[in-house]
Amino acid sequence: MRAARYYARNDIRIEDVAEPQLMPGSVAIDVAWCGICGTDLHEFLEGPIFIPPTGCPHPISGEDAPVVIGHEFSGTVTALGEGVADLEVGQSVVVEPYIIADDVDTGPGQDYQLSKDMNFIGLGGRGGGLAEKIVVQRRWVHPVGDIPLDQAALIEPLSVGHHAYVRSGARAGQTAVVGGAGPIGLLTAAVLKAEGLTVFVSELSEARKEMARTTGVADEVLDPRDGDVAERVRELTGGAGADVGFECSSVPVVLDMLLDAVRPGAVIVNVSIWGHKPEVDMPTLVLKEIDLRGTIGYSNDHPATIALVQSGKIDLAPFITGRISLDTLVSEGYDQLIHHNEEHVKIIVDPRA
Amino acid sequence: MRAARYYARNDIRIEDVAEPQLMPGSVAIDVAWCGICGTDLHEFLEGPIFIPPTGCPHPISGEDAPVVIGHEFSGTVTALGEGVADLEVGQSVVVEPYIIADDVDTGPGQDYQLSKDMNFIGLGGRGGGLAEKIVVQRRWVHPVGDIPLDQAALIEPLSVGHHAYVRSGARAGQTAVVGGAGPIGLLTAAVLKAEGLTVFVSELSEARKEMARTTGVADEVLDPRDGDVAERVRELTGGAGADVGFECSSVPVVLDMLLDAVRPGAVIVNVSIWGHKPEVDMPTLVLKEIDLRGTIGYSNDHPATIALVQSGKIDLAPFITGRISLDTLVSEGYDQLIHHNEEHVKIIVDPRA
Repeated sequence: MRAARYYARNDIRIEDVAEPQLMPGSVAIDVAWCGICGTDLHEFLEGPIFIPPTGCPHPISGEDAPVVIGHEFSGTVTALGEGVADLEVGQSVVVEPYIIADDVDTGPGQDYQLSKDMNFIGLGGRGGGLAEKIVVQRRWVHPVGDIPLDQAALIEPLSVGHHAYVRSGARAGQTAVVGGAGPIGLLTAAVLKAEGLTVFVSELSEARKEMARTTGVADEVLDPRDGDVAERVRELTGGAGADVGFECSSVPVVLDMLLDAVRPGAVIVNVSIWGHKPEVDMPTLVLKEIDLRGTIGYSNDHPATIALVQSGKIDLAPFITGRISLDTLVSEGYDQLIHHNEEHVKIIVDPRA
Repeated sequence: MRAARYYARNDIRIEDVAEPQLMPGSVAIDVAWCGICGTDLHEFLEGPIFIPPTGCPHPISGEDAPVVIGHEFSGTVTALGEGVADLEVGQSVVVEPYIIADDVDTGPGQDYQLSKDMNFIGLGGRGGGLAEKIVVQRRWVHPVGDIPLDQAALIEPLSVGHHAYVRSGARAGQTAVVGGAGPIGLLTAAVLKAEGLTVFVSELSEARKEMARTTGVADEVLDPRDGDVAERVRELTGGAGADVGFECSSVPVVLDMLLDAVRPGAVIVNVSIWGHKPEVDMPTLVLKEIDLRGTIGYSNDHPATIALVQSGKIDLAPFITGRISLDTLVSEGYDQLIHHNEEHVKIIVDPRA
């Protein structure tokens, strides 16, 4: 079958690889669509980061580069391994793409995303969504009902936003500030809006501001060039400040803005990935008793995230800004996201085209 | 009466001032002992910070420099203002030294320490503990029963440690790492130990390490020069890492050590005051989903803190390392704390001597 494999920095190849074999307790899936994630770009430009370099196999998967990539994908069940009785061939599904030790409990309330040597399918081995087929353990497969498979490819990043929302402890009726309207900022805002919060989005890029407006995820879009964002948030909240903040930019001044814009006693969730140690406005964190919470991935977020889309509270269609074939992954997909990043939210790839 | 008043940086004067007048709803107290706080030193060396400079009166107290200083004090009730019926003349008391707007609710569960323009008695006006007498609103007066008045002067900084403990959500049986064994680090460790946690203290200074050992607040004292502290904490916790961390040093590498030393999903409470924006290891905060919580002062912590001392779970006597008279406040007290800081925990002042 055709697959995209990561060999090393700047070296991704589209090539023929052996089809994965169905195993007991696993599910065979024909991939329909796979999104390109910022993490994929980081691996291409600066990696390997999550990907185990050639000669350094991952302790759980046992695999090293070259590995099949792609971790935001949807597909159709084609076969069920021995012992899998609660899914059906032909079902539309998405994959929660974790590589986690078999003995880690993934039941309700378990923070399995924090387990030792956690990695991701499509980065750390075990196949990926940028291939025609994949076989995954039953516990990572989530049926999506009648959600169209192109939109379903966005369930994975939407689950990141859902996990951040859960981590924040935010409630309907509260006010949130989202710093940055890239893909994760927009999808986090979508979850917050669907959960009944008032959402202010801070963003510089015209294209992203427009996306935040047209998708309806922001009640107000605030541009730092039009005046102090924290001051505007206070005006919009009767002087109080926002109840919760979400850092989705990896930009130090945005984190400082959030510390300023939230009310005393507020929670700020960091949803972005930092490549360095930024300066943080600890004096404000202290004097306002702010809670700054890290968040990574998702844990038991997929069912609730899927339900938000099934119920119509979130429409994922507007966030798909490009559709390409596997052969043009780098020349079209990566190139667009590297050079025209602000015009895109999510480019999805058809691995069979 | 005699009092220490702050005029400006490097300008504290011991002088005669008018005695405060009893008002309805207030309590007159003869001060017994008043501790010197790190904040007092910062005001002296680098201030004014909390102290309203001459010509810039504080919005609640209406006062500006010169102001009477001292906010860690104990004393004896000498008179009760109209309407105060639940205290008695002759009682030993401490003062929770807040300046907070009259209409702010200070009942259970209220975060009044975060209210607008909050300041402290002994910094922002309304008298201070470095004077023979003070009159304060009833709501800030806490009886201490038979706790000796010299030890009672340490209830205020101990309440800071108690508030940090409450903010952490730590429970008996858990493991804590305290970064820094200055006065606040030691008193925070004392609360944690009294509440049933296992406590590891990280400290460089020989004198402070010795104090952490002899007072019994630390189960283990870890010196960064003897090897990586986070690694040692993991060894001591069967590889898991500590459940909770307390930053009590304002040193960036200590905060980074705590982020490394705690387990995934842990809470770190910042108890120290930062004069700048430090670099923070956000990548680790994110990947371990750590909760970094600011804390300032106390809110409804005094009763529980006093109970810990009354019950004998905390012995404050060993933390008193000097006793001086008001006249030698700067020449003996400040000088010792500036030049021989590591040998001292708390120097207390008798304003009548």
